[in-house]
Amino acid sequence: MGQDRINVAVVGATGAVGEEFLKLLVERNFPYKTLKLLASARSVGKRLRVGNEELEVEELRPESFAGVDLAFFSAGAGVSREFAPRAVAAGAVVVDNISAFRMDEGVPLVVPEVNPEDLRWHKSIIANPNCSTIILALPLYALHREVGVRRVVVSTYQAVSGAGARAMQELQDQLRQALRGEPVTPGILPVASAPRHYPIAFNVIPQVDVFAEDGFTKEEWKMVRETCKIFHAPELKVAATTVRVPVLRSHAESVQVELERPVTVDEARDIMGRMPGVVVWDRPEEQVYPMPYQTSGTDPVYVGRVRRDPTVAAGLLFWVVGDQIRKGAALNGIQIAELLLQQRLLTPAS
Amino acid sequence: MGQDRINVAVVGATGAVGEEFLKLLVERNFPYKTLKLLASARSVGKRLRVGNEELEVEELRPESFAGVDLAFFSAGAGVSREFAPRAVAAGAVVVDNISAFRMDEGVPLVVPEVNPEDLRWHKSIIANPNCSTIILALPLYALHREVGVRRVVVSTYQAVSGAGARAMQELQDQLRQALRGEPVTPGILPVASAPRHYPIAFNVIPQVDVFAEDGFTKEEWKMVRETCKIFHAPELKVAATTVRVPVLRSHAESVQVELERPVTVDEARDIMGRMPGVVVWDRPEEQVYPMPYQTSGTDPVYVGRVRRDPTVAAGLLFWVVGDQIRKGAALNGIQIAELLLQQRLLTPAS
Repeated sequence: MGQDRINVAVVGATGAVGEEFLKLLVERNFPYKTLKLLASARSVGKRLRVGNEELEVEELRPESFAGVDLAFFSAGAGVSREFAPRAVAAGAVVVDNISAFRMDEGVPLVVPEVNPEDLRWHKSIIANPNCSTIILALPLYALHREVGVRRVVVSTYQAVSGAGARAMQELQDQLRQALRGEPVTPGILPVASAPRHYPIAFNVIPQVDVFAEDGFTKEEWKMVRETCKIFHAPELKVAATTVRVPVLRSHAESVQVELERPVTVDEARDIMGRMPGVVVWDRPEEQVYPMPYQTSGTDPVYVGRVRRDPTVAAGLLFWVVGDQIRKGAALNGIQIAELLLQQRLLTPAS
Repeated sequence: MGQDRINVAVVGATGAVGEEFLKLLVERNFPYKTLKLLASARSVGKRLRVGNEELEVEELRPESFAGVDLAFFSAGAGVSREFAPRAVAAGAVVVDNISAFRMDEGVPLVVPEVNPEDLRWHKSIIANPNCSTIILALPLYALHREVGVRRVVVSTYQAVSGAGARAMQELQDQLRQALRGEPVTPGILPVASAPRHYPIAFNVIPQVDVFAEDGFTKEEWKMVRETCKIFHAPELKVAATTVRVPVLRSHAESVQVELERPVTVDEARDIMGRMPGVVVWDRPEEQVYPMPYQTSGTDPVYVGRVRRDPTVAAGLLFWVVGDQIRKGAALNGIQIAELLLQQRLLTPAS
């Protein structure tokens, strides 16, 4: 059965995630009829190549969404809060890559491999989870579903792409400065809008996003709360420490989990390896484990370094790596859109 | 009361740790009468500045230790195994920075702030712990002594200096290559002698040292076993994941501990801050936390990001950073030597 082609808008088309979304629309042969690239006034007139076409970036305005069926937002929480309701009012379904609506009760927060059923009750806005949450969610959910997860302690190694294209430029500029023996000039990381900026070249920064309650950053709370929401497991316990490292675009995470019952390493590899979207690369005797440099630009989430945690009865340690811009953002968003089309859910539940 | 000056030898004088040791001998006004710089034949004739003197590197030979009172070894496990017994036979006390003897029952493994009393029973060889172990040991021991630690989950962010001066050069060379768009040519990391090498520029490598039993690396086992030995706490449970990051010389560690009783964040900061050698930098509201770039080249171990772990009754999360070459290696070694002199322990216990 053929699918009608739809009109798509990408808000934040010139950002790191927006550009990846455009690539994926072409790569995955997404059935769009028209494609509107929206951005702030600063980028208006810029031309972007999308497959064989060259499209001009238009200014995001309240009236931009006339005739749009699906709008993908990745341009900051303020933009989502202001314009997502406009898009919905114009009849579009919004897939929002920003934190703006993720914890709203009326908004499904979806990782397609984990909780696709939540798309059925959407009310025109669907939230894409935080990148470090998505990358953790895939292998963790496999364990949660088959064994039961009680508790998670996670430390992240997050690429600068999570702070946008400007942060990726900043890392490279600072490295050039440092290698020439010049002072580095931080201006973006850890958080562009925060008062203090620190070098990322030859450094790691234990702050991703701004600080929130109890000494945790917002990024750390996102990993806790979003995971519970996606898994429908309010009782799941997660403690996160999120850290920025001088890597361009794949995130890595060191994970310790306490399970409902002990599993062997082989069983754990098998459980996680059967999860769609997860690839297990784990042969320590051959030094095989996933790393950012091999996984950037690819779709799966990769698991390695699986070990029994010797400090608890039913504990497991593992290492997971995934491209922050792909599965951590744009790919997950386009997978949501594909499911909406397949399941004819492009009109909201009433 | 004056201290007699002693004859000192530094084995591995041209390495990253050896050079730092020479700097510290001068900085700390260590009372040496003669100083012998020993290295492999490759470095012979090289001249190194030590304070106001310029000293020539001599070839390490079996007879090198005649008249030497104290020998600091930092030149690889093979060198320590072969030459440390020669130094002892010649009447020297050896402070060994290598893993060769650390777990030997007859060899004290010492962090001066933690277990100085173990120096009393040395039999001419004293082992300096692994760098990531020392950095963890300082704040952890403070908690262990005052509250009791049951269990530790630690993930490390280790600088390339831990793999020596050649690895520091490799990181910089690879970054220059990558920034010019050239392919990078890994040859040292993660382990020079291992079959596979991976890029460290724009990457993180979840392997430090070679793999050992149960899927853990030797580095991970060092953190477990050395911590238990230093603390005289065989029952202490530690699970470690050790990761190399593109940083030049300070290690960072994300630590989760389960304590014998709950403590508040302020209490935990106070307990760790009172530990000699530890500085607490922890004001999240001002984005104050320790990072490698601020702490490289300095002596203390810095603690920040102290939080109650919301997933257990008596859990704590924190972040610790320390210079791998300073407190993680050469400084700890020279502190051991200073204690030996102060306590007149330069002759072995009988």
